[in-house]
Amino acid sequence: MRSLIPFVALVALATPAFADALVDNVNGMTLDKDGRVVRFNAVLISPEGKVVKLLQANDKRPERLDWRADEKGKVLLPGFVDAHGHVMSLGFRALELDLSDTHSLDEAKAKIAAYAAANPERKWIVGGGWNQEAWGLGRFPTAADLDGVVSDRPVWLSRVDGHAGWANSAAMKAAGVTAKSVSPAGGRIEKTGAGAKLGPSGVFVDAAQALVEKVVPQPLPKELDAAFLRAQETLLSYGITATADMGTSLDAWLSYRRLGDLGALRVRIMSYASGVETAIRIGGTGPTPWLYADKLHMGGVKLFADGALGSRGAWLKAPYSDAPGQSGAGFMSDDVIRNLMSRAAMDGYQVAVHAIGDKANAQVLDAIEEMAQTYKGDRRWRVEHAQIVDPVDLPRFGKYGTIASMQPVHQTSDRAMAEARLGPARLAGAYAWKSMLANGATLAFGTDYPVESPDPFAGWAAAFTRQGADGQPPGGWQPQEVISREAAWRAYTMDAAYAGFAEAKFGRLAPGQRADFIIVDRDPLLASPADLRATKVQQTWVGGEKVWVRK
Amino acid sequence: MRSLIPFVALVALATPAFADALVDNVNGMTLDKDGRVVRFNAVLISPEGKVVKLLQANDKRPERLDWRADEKGKVLLPGFVDAHGHVMSLGFRALELDLSDTHSLDEAKAKIAAYAAANPERKWIVGGGWNQEAWGLGRFPTAADLDGVVSDRPVWLSRVDGHAGWANSAAMKAAGVTAKSVSPAGGRIEKTGAGAKLGPSGVFVDAAQALVEKVVPQPLPKELDAAFLRAQETLLSYGITATADMGTSLDAWLSYRRLGDLGALRVRIMSYASGVETAIRIGGTGPTPWLYADKLHMGGVKLFADGALGSRGAWLKAPYSDAPGQSGAGFMSDDVIRNLMSRAAMDGYQVAVHAIGDKANAQVLDAIEEMAQTYKGDRRWRVEHAQIVDPVDLPRFGKYGTIASMQPVHQTSDRAMAEARLGPARLAGAYAWKSMLANGATLAFGTDYPVESPDPFAGWAAAFTRQGADGQPPGGWQPQEVISREAAWRAYTMDAAYAGFAEAKFGRLAPGQRADFIIVDRDPLLASPADLRATKVQQTWVGGEKVWVRK
Repeated sequence: MRSLIPFVALVALATPAFADALVDNVNGMTLDKDGRVVRFNAVLISPEGKVVKLLQANDKRPERLDWRADEKGKVLLPGFVDAHGHVMSLGFRALELDLSDTHSLDEAKAKIAAYAAANPERKWIVGGGWNQEAWGLGRFPTAADLDGVVSDRPVWLSRVDGHAGWANSAAMKAAGVTAKSVSPAGGRIEKTGAGAKLGPSGVFVDAAQALVEKVVPQPLPKELDAAFLRAQETLLSYGITATADMGTSLDAWLSYRRLGDLGALRVRIMSYASGVETAIRIGGTGPTPWLYADKLHMGGVKLFADGALGSRGAWLKAPYSDAPGQSGAGFMSDDVIRNLMSRAAMDGYQVAVHAIGDKANAQVLDAIEEMAQTYKGDRRWRVEHAQIVDPVDLPRFGKYGTIASMQPVHQTSDRAMAEARLGPARLAGAYAWKSMLANGATLAFGTDYPVESPDPFAGWAAAFTRQGADGQPPGGWQPQEVISREAAWRAYTMDAAYAGFAEAKFGRLAPGQRADFIIVDRDPLLASPADLRATKVQQTWVGGEKVWVRK
Repeated sequence: MRSLIPFVALVALATPAFADALVDNVNGMTLDKDGRVVRFNAVLISPEGKVVKLLQANDKRPERLDWRADEKGKVLLPGFVDAHGHVMSLGFRALELDLSDTHSLDEAKAKIAAYAAANPERKWIVGGGWNQEAWGLGRFPTAADLDGVVSDRPVWLSRVDGHAGWANSAAMKAAGVTAKSVSPAGGRIEKTGAGAKLGPSGVFVDAAQALVEKVVPQPLPKELDAAFLRAQETLLSYGITATADMGTSLDAWLSYRRLGDLGALRVRIMSYASGVETAIRIGGTGPTPWLYADKLHMGGVKLFADGALGSRGAWLKAPYSDAPGQSGAGFMSDDVIRNLMSRAAMDGYQVAVHAIGDKANAQVLDAIEEMAQTYKGDRRWRVEHAQIVDPVDLPRFGKYGTIASMQPVHQTSDRAMAEARLGPARLAGAYAWKSMLANGATLAFGTDYPVESPDPFAGWAAAFTRQGADGQPPGGWQPQEVISREAAWRAYTMDAAYAGFAEAKFGRLAPGQRADFIIVDRDPLLASPADLRATKVQQTWVGGEKVWVRK
């Protein structure tokens, strides 16, 4: 068949018509492919927005340039890559009622009341971010707590980690939840009262959330688009130029495509579909191509082996120290999780499984071991969080190319809670970053936003200090698991890209990589931990285009 | 914000690096923007696949050409545009059991039995294309007819027009259909027996089809992709280079995107989403852009005002002549149809409403009249089929830019049935092409494939003869509604493109239009009607690329 030269070749050949561009006079730093720090003075960028070359101060500049930006010695870094976030949730957290800044139940109640008063047209009050641990409440909140604030319409509020929801009585009534309702597999209806008065307390853990969520009004497509744009703005403001989206729904995907079609995607999204069925409806017999000049790719599937520590949904080998009868529960039997992993892997989808508790981590590692016998090649099995691991299981992360996708800030945020939930004897394999590296696993860092702020500098500082923003505890928590500043940087950039099969596209600055970089107000390799946490992004560039500037 | 020169500009400026290409030495013909025939000898094509210029035999050829094809005097026409087809159904008709070539119930039974025997692994036997009129059966078939052929598993077969389905007893059992089942609004469960033995006969008309379809296994994404590719091949083989897809499901859309992302779309698809909700889930607050270099666009919504004549689902002002108690039924109240049209129109979606019966056509025209007061501008309200129109309503098609989207072959296929259903007094406004033009409506032609073959030459010949392939009836049926050969060509090309807001992109050959054309084995402007029907496409080109060749 006779055909024209393909469009792609046309563009490639067209390049000589344009000159390159130069971001000049920077205090530039990146990692090379072996993870060593490289410093440079200028970045030469091709018309397609890729790095042509890094230049030193005394390197000759090209005579012909399309444009040149003189950054007057500012610090320039590769954009950060968040290996685990929730893009739409980040946007909705900002657009809906957000309780993540409340320090007590009373403060939360006041905020809920004010929001309800300010939004009389909303038929449901929907939001999230609450955390009974941060409130020092010593218990879950209840429907009765909410009913005193809003009783004229349903209220549904997600816990900060998304692993529990809090309903008022009107929401439970709308959902048909009664004293007779039964906890579904993989979930738990919290109860209150006793005997004939035993009934749902108003908190629904993990899979039990669906009992209420099925009647919560779903966002309109235009609301999804607005939430995405809000999230994108936030991510770019923190210097995140690429992110994994862990659990993309079909409707979120349709929103990403709408904005991609309009040329409005700026941040790069490595999408992991919410479940196998969603992946296959979108991708058919395999991952999508990288779309919109490497801005969007659905390459894998997100699955859940268990819940979270805060709501005691994490699945432990031995009971919780602060709830002797409970060990959490796995979301799926061994058979089911292997069946789903197999269905994804046989079509070439990458598999990313959430595992917080030591029992869940062991279940996933067992499943990977079996899968790896059948599905050969470069599979990059991902364990998301890998938070509490039995030390006997730690070496297994080094096998089959397994990736430990972890969030340093969880360690500092959850330290006190983790001690209470686990007791001192089980902390040796908790947030065990150094052990992961020592065992040969690939470590990919993220924030789990909006569970935590997407700010990567807080996580970076935590990774080499094991201390919170307050500098506590002295010497760091379980300090044997500290990793180096450079190793943490690597996990937040090039290895987070590697975890998404994107290391040839972005994650560091080198010829052929997308010109994704940020300009910041200090040198992060020299700053003290406290200074590093205070770093402000001044400009964010994606694909050689300046897409965000601090005002 | 400082940014690189946009990608689009880059491509445009890159063009000089390539020369144009020439399809030379053709007997070329097209319509100009006023619908006049233009003849030419060569087509100059840009690297982007658009027509640069039409050349005459004595025009100087460019010195520098990227390539030149000498077609040695063959006939070259613009590609046809089918204004009303069902892309996925066309593919599935080819991949599943197809009864459209059967001439009796016995022949159909034999084909069903052979298919079931050849496909023992299929849990359901699914297919379509049956037509009790073509069988001369004088009644609908029944579940009992099918049970004698296949009783070990469910069977579900669509009528040729998609407006009725035929189930065996196993399918009705799987669907939970019993004697107590009630016909839903907009649908009818055909009944058999009497008294205590009254029960479902096995045929389900219009909305009643959903009672069974809800349990029919849905195609997998890879099956959708295969069906699309099969349909595309068939369309290209008939010289159709662009088509409206009337009622795209979300999963069909996802398949089109998968193939678009892979560069496998050849035929241009003007998609009309199946219902308002699907449109908004895909497009959000408005139509999608034209994607993949004008290969795909979701610009409107398909709605149904009534059913079809064959199953007596068409909604008539007076009862059917051959079923005195029945007048069909509207699918929606006036309020509902206006509400849906309004929801679509307020977000800028084009509205296309199926209307077969004179009552349904009047309902839609009334609704358009009201909508046009609120939704101003160039809306191109579409009435799909506009088949049986009360002569008093015909002039109303000339108002508000209304488009009559009609299928000439339906007239020749349905002639005898239409006479039986309507009686002689109601034929004056049936398939009234000439009246549509005389009243100032835009006429857009298609085939309603797979209800009819997508072959446009049969419809073109029917349009200026009102005769079937057998030359019957002498002088043509209701010959006052014949239109000219050129007017019919226009309705099948540039005005079918206009009906999809695509007249600036394709539908004829002129500078700036996409180079979509076909090479055929005779001159369609000189051929007798019988010769015209026999036309064979030899090559099909889309966007300046040869995408199909007869082997």
